[in-house]
Amino acid sequence: MIRTALIFSFMMIVFFAQAQELSLMPVPQQVTVNGQKFRVRKDFSIAISGNANDRLYREASRFRKRLAERAVLNMPAWTVDRRNDGSMASLVIKSDHPGTVQLEMEESYSLDVKGDGIRIEAASDIGAIRGLETLFQLLSSDKDGFYFQGVSVKDKPRFAWRGLLLSQPYHFMPLDVIKRMLDAMALVKLNVLHYYISDDQAWTIESKVYPKLHQQASHGEYLTQDQVREMIGYADQRGIRVVPEVDLPGHSTAFLTAFPELASIPRKYQLQDHWGVFDPSVDPTKTRTYEVLDTLLTEVASLFKDNYFHIGGDENNGKDWARSDSIQRFMAKEGLPTTVALQNHFNKKVRDILRRSNKTVVGWDEVLMKVMNSDSARNAFESGRYDQLIHPSVPKDMVIQSWRGMEALLASAKNGYRSILSKGYYIDLVQPTSYHYLNDPYPEMNSEIIPDSEADLNRFESDITRKVKEGKRLLTPEEESLIIGGEATMWTEHVTAETLDSRVWPRTAAIAERLWSPSSVRDVPDMYRRMDRITIQLEWVGSLHIRNRTMMLRRISGQEATGPLEKVVNLIEPVKGYRRNNKGDLTKFSPYTEVVDIAIPDPRELREFNGLIDSVLLPNRSKKLNDLEREAKLWRSNHAQVLSLSASNPNLDPIVHHSASLSDLSSYVEDYVRMRRSSKKPDVAWKAKFKTELDKASAEYAHCDLGVTSALRKLLN
Amino acid sequence: MIRTALIFSFMMIVFFAQAQELSLMPVPQQVTVNGQKFRVRKDFSIAISGNANDRLYREASRFRKRLAERAVLNMPAWTVDRRNDGSMASLVIKSDHPGTVQLEMEESYSLDVKGDGIRIEAASDIGAIRGLETLFQLLSSDKDGFYFQGVSVKDKPRFAWRGLLLSQPYHFMPLDVIKRMLDAMALVKLNVLHYYISDDQAWTIESKVYPKLHQQASHGEYLTQDQVREMIGYADQRGIRVVPEVDLPGHSTAFLTAFPELASIPRKYQLQDHWGVFDPSVDPTKTRTYEVLDTLLTEVASLFKDNYFHIGGDENNGKDWARSDSIQRFMAKEGLPTTVALQNHFNKKVRDILRRSNKTVVGWDEVLMKVMNSDSARNAFESGRYDQLIHPSVPKDMVIQSWRGMEALLASAKNGYRSILSKGYYIDLVQPTSYHYLNDPYPEMNSEIIPDSEADLNRFESDITRKVKEGKRLLTPEEESLIIGGEATMWTEHVTAETLDSRVWPRTAAIAERLWSPSSVRDVPDMYRRMDRITIQLEWVGSLHIRNRTMMLRRISGQEATGPLEKVVNLIEPVKGYRRNNKGDLTKFSPYTEVVDIAIPDPRELREFNGLIDSVLLPNRSKKLNDLEREAKLWRSNHAQVLSLSASNPNLDPIVHHSASLSDLSSYVEDYVRMRRSSKKPDVAWKAKFKTELDKASAEYAHCDLGVTSALRKLLN
Repeated sequence: MIRTALIFSFMMIVFFAQAQELSLMPVPQQVTVNGQKFRVRKDFSIAISGNANDRLYREASRFRKRLAERAVLNMPAWTVDRRNDGSMASLVIKSDHPGTVQLEMEESYSLDVKGDGIRIEAASDIGAIRGLETLFQLLSSDKDGFYFQGVSVKDKPRFAWRGLLLSQPYHFMPLDVIKRMLDAMALVKLNVLHYYISDDQAWTIESKVYPKLHQQASHGEYLTQDQVREMIGYADQRGIRVVPEVDLPGHSTAFLTAFPELASIPRKYQLQDHWGVFDPSVDPTKTRTYEVLDTLLTEVASLFKDNYFHIGGDENNGKDWARSDSIQRFMAKEGLPTTVALQNHFNKKVRDILRRSNKTVVGWDEVLMKVMNSDSARNAFESGRYDQLIHPSVPKDMVIQSWRGMEALLASAKNGYRSILSKGYYIDLVQPTSYHYLNDPYPEMNSEIIPDSEADLNRFESDITRKVKEGKRLLTPEEESLIIGGEATMWTEHVTAETLDSRVWPRTAAIAERLWSPSSVRDVPDMYRRMDRITIQLEWVGSLHIRNRTMMLRRISGQEATGPLEKVVNLIEPVKGYRRNNKGDLTKFSPYTEVVDIAIPDPRELREFNGLIDSVLLPNRSKKLNDLEREAKLWRSNHAQVLSLSASNPNLDPIVHHSASLSDLSSYVEDYVRMRRSSKKPDVAWKAKFKTELDKASAEYAHCDLGVTSALRKLLN
Repeated sequence: MIRTALIFSFMMIVFFAQAQELSLMPVPQQVTVNGQKFRVRKDFSIAISGNANDRLYREASRFRKRLAERAVLNMPAWTVDRRNDGSMASLVIKSDHPGTVQLEMEESYSLDVKGDGIRIEAASDIGAIRGLETLFQLLSSDKDGFYFQGVSVKDKPRFAWRGLLLSQPYHFMPLDVIKRMLDAMALVKLNVLHYYISDDQAWTIESKVYPKLHQQASHGEYLTQDQVREMIGYADQRGIRVVPEVDLPGHSTAFLTAFPELASIPRKYQLQDHWGVFDPSVDPTKTRTYEVLDTLLTEVASLFKDNYFHIGGDENNGKDWARSDSIQRFMAKEGLPTTVALQNHFNKKVRDILRRSNKTVVGWDEVLMKVMNSDSARNAFESGRYDQLIHPSVPKDMVIQSWRGMEALLASAKNGYRSILSKGYYIDLVQPTSYHYLNDPYPEMNSEIIPDSEADLNRFESDITRKVKEGKRLLTPEEESLIIGGEATMWTEHVTAETLDSRVWPRTAAIAERLWSPSSVRDVPDMYRRMDRITIQLEWVGSLHIRNRTMMLRRISGQEATGPLEKVVNLIEPVKGYRRNNKGDLTKFSPYTEVVDIAIPDPRELREFNGLIDSVLLPNRSKKLNDLEREAKLWRSNHAQVLSLSASNPNLDPIVHHSASLSDLSSYVEDYVRMRRSSKKPDVAWKAKFKTELDKASAEYAHCDLGVTSALRKLLN
């Protein structure tokens, strides 16, 4: 089923060039523009035919409401008249049968917008709902009013699993926050919310079988079972699955706070406030462990109706197991040579429990991989013996979530396991959107990917990259079809309900496109052009990613007018990767209200500046030189205003620092403009001074980088 | 009890002059500034002594969290250590006993901030919580960091009932929206949320005894009983009561949609989508009516734990009663001469039902007043026969909510009824803040009040105003003590969850001050100065009143950069009073996303412009003339940008229109500046042309008024 879908997507002819003036995100498999306009008036009506269910009626009604709000239309009602036979309707939706929100749900649809009517056809209502989102993105206006752009679209997703992970134990997101995430996800056609229930810091849903879990291990922050059901119902309404994860046997301090008797080492267990990997681990040798897990996981499994259940399995460091004599004895007796083998034993037992609830199990790549990043791994890879990389006894129906490197994805596929990719989609690491966007679940596509840190440049990965560059095919089409999708991971150590939106959006829209659109859609400037439009549409469904940043600037400055501060914040970026918590002093109770929390990766203003530098470097760009000169002058005058705003606001220091750098750099930029105008070459001394200034300005300060420096370095050549 | 409190507040010496450099809102009864600073560091700790309850511990913990967020402090935790004996704590709170969140709850407190420590003392934890809010408003910063301003405060409210009404049936506000309202209310010490459950448009809470009410009469938008309890618990935590209102016998279409057999006239009942006063009314002659109401109101009464219960009683137009033969026969038989008398009969029955649930009943002034605004009313007033204005049989414990005019408040007090004032606090009528601020529950204080519409200038009210101006005392101190407070009323016909915040805040902060602070605190410019600071603090507890306006501008314009549009929107105001829905075509399904919904009453920028004109009019203000000239030039250049932004956005037309007016007016302003500089008098022809232009610009357009015109008219003299 999956395989057929993927092959089909490859065969499709993508008329992407014709769609350039459109701003669809994700780009559909096939679009043709017909130049017509369907005018939107307050009598805009919808008729639904076929065997549709309530979900589609509700979404169609919501569509009308959104349309009325955006286009300011005084409609008589938003509901869709069930008696409308479609002969007079503006939009006719035909849906063959009700869909089921599970893996491989039917999401294909066709959409035709002509001057005299709009038609959406889909096998299931879920496909029709995807089509409604595409239609909404076609809403445009001219001097005569609003209209839908005339197109013919045939669309279906490239991958079946397109997810966003939300880690609740780090910073808990209440139901209303999750709802606005789901609305935004639906807008860009994501279809899985990975609800990460438990970790060392908290257990975040109500348990009726073991109430002490939410009572003692949640700081009072959890979803009740009613709220969990409400969340799942809300997601279902948008065609989104909710996959739960109970991370075991490591990352389990919260569980052990309620069940200390099930720990590997007797110790006083209390909720962890710090971030990182900790030793506590469930004792996999006790019968009681499996009795409790059976009761608990069966409860969780019945609450979350999705067929898939994530059992975690990552970063269990094995230290507590090594420390325990009884566990060591158990391993000797059972012939389990390593803690990795013991974890594999544990995983099988947990899987057996969940199989009784009819769940297919998902795990982080540790559950599959015996070894990674070593010489033996490299040898196995080079010699094509992928089976040597993995535990042979892992059941074939298990889904592997690859987060540590491409090798896990390759090994899964080579050994017949389905997998989803998260490596490269770690949006908590505040990388530029382009990085995530170019990161393809098919390794073959990744020759141009930029490594996200030095650690990525390990030999194994560079071998993969080399092979790709050499044009080697790493996976057969059959193996590729086992890669069923990807997930953006929002680990919220440094992210609160206030900053969640701007850490997820709009960047995740680009990941959503990577997972939906044809692999050939990878034009970065065009992605940014469209993202800059989608970002404000995300606001209309409730996302606070723009709004909260301005509020946070007003809070940190204590005043309402923050223009000069905003100017600087939009030219800096948070430090990337794991650099922020370098002193390890950040906790659940730290304030995430600093300048670094307001800054975002690749802000539009910074991208525009980078573009300006690139055009300045082309010959005969005197107009662009003027723009550059004006920008440099602005940096200096803006800095004076920043200084006055920050006089009594010591927490604005990071902005003052980077603003001072901008001000210092501005004279070099003006020098450069002057020299270019007079066709003078910069001398060595000037270059040296400018370089020194750039090096100074490039230094991380208050967990922020000044984004303009890399573009400015181009002026040195 | 109330009387003592009020007399005490009059006796207090208000050191208001000394508090001028503070930005407290509401202003405490007594403040002295000591010039010291308590420095805030990340080890800021709180100790609680006395007989405190969990509520205070939770609020103190929330205080630390807010402090950490605002001042960016990496505290180890926010919780308050129960073992801290206070000897080393930054803030020591002493609370004698747990308070009960009911009318006349104990809210007094004292607060002392010195360089070496902070102390809050209160009889109850609720008073201590009020003190914490005052303390938070003392948070300031200088170049060395954050500190609390050194003060000594003795404080208690002037009125016991300080409320905000939220009408759920017009536009339903989900629980998270209500929670953020409650947080904002707590910040300005409001203590009653009036939850308006039902009207012609909907019934908005779950009923277990009659599920058809929420199933058939809510559009699916209601709070479950769990959510109602959660709301009440959340409010209780902030020291806020929740008073429910079931509006009867009119405003009852939603109720009759579920119970058509209880209607006065047989008719097909369905939820009303339009706004206004409608004929449907409960049949007060049927036994079954009271059986159903007994069951239903007893359920609602048990759900809302407050001792007070609002039974509505307003705007029952009596038409359906007059149309019904059986009701007419009943009236004749029972000796009820008028529909007003029949409503009084109904009210008594409803009150008897609620008395069995130990509730004291509140009603709109119709439940008390036999007659208003007529010659006989005027005669009764002039002759001091206040008893002639009211139904004699209304029980003395009933509380009257006065909304139609001061006479109801006077009549209530003169006849021994307790009352709360809402007339003048109708924030849905988008009046300037100063209007609400100067509107005092004691008529004696209202000589300077500006009438809110022509209708207000009826003879009765002007008689009151005349008497007040003549220095006549209308109420004895005993009578005044029966006026127990006031309520801002947020009727949400034209207000959605998106615009609620900016329709309520920050204006309601001024009403909160009117109801808390001494009556002598009525310096309008100082109120605005403090409101402009409180407005951003309201954001920190979640209010979206600033954020959502910018989002709405981005939506209506379809773009992210909206500076020029914002400039215009901040110089216009929504039309006041009931003028917006003049065509009556607005419904529950209209889009409230227009320019008029983005505009707010007396925006800061408009007030600043008005202030500029006032200073320009003073002699020798050449610098201010320069400012005025710059502003006028800006209007013209801004208009060019508005035109370019609005080319393909027809919904920006209201902004374009008013921007064009500003641009047209700018040349007259420049003329004026030129003439003032050369000490030339404007000639008659110029004045005539300027006046014509002003008249044109003053015309309402798209439900908006151009705010600058009244100040500009001053330049004509």
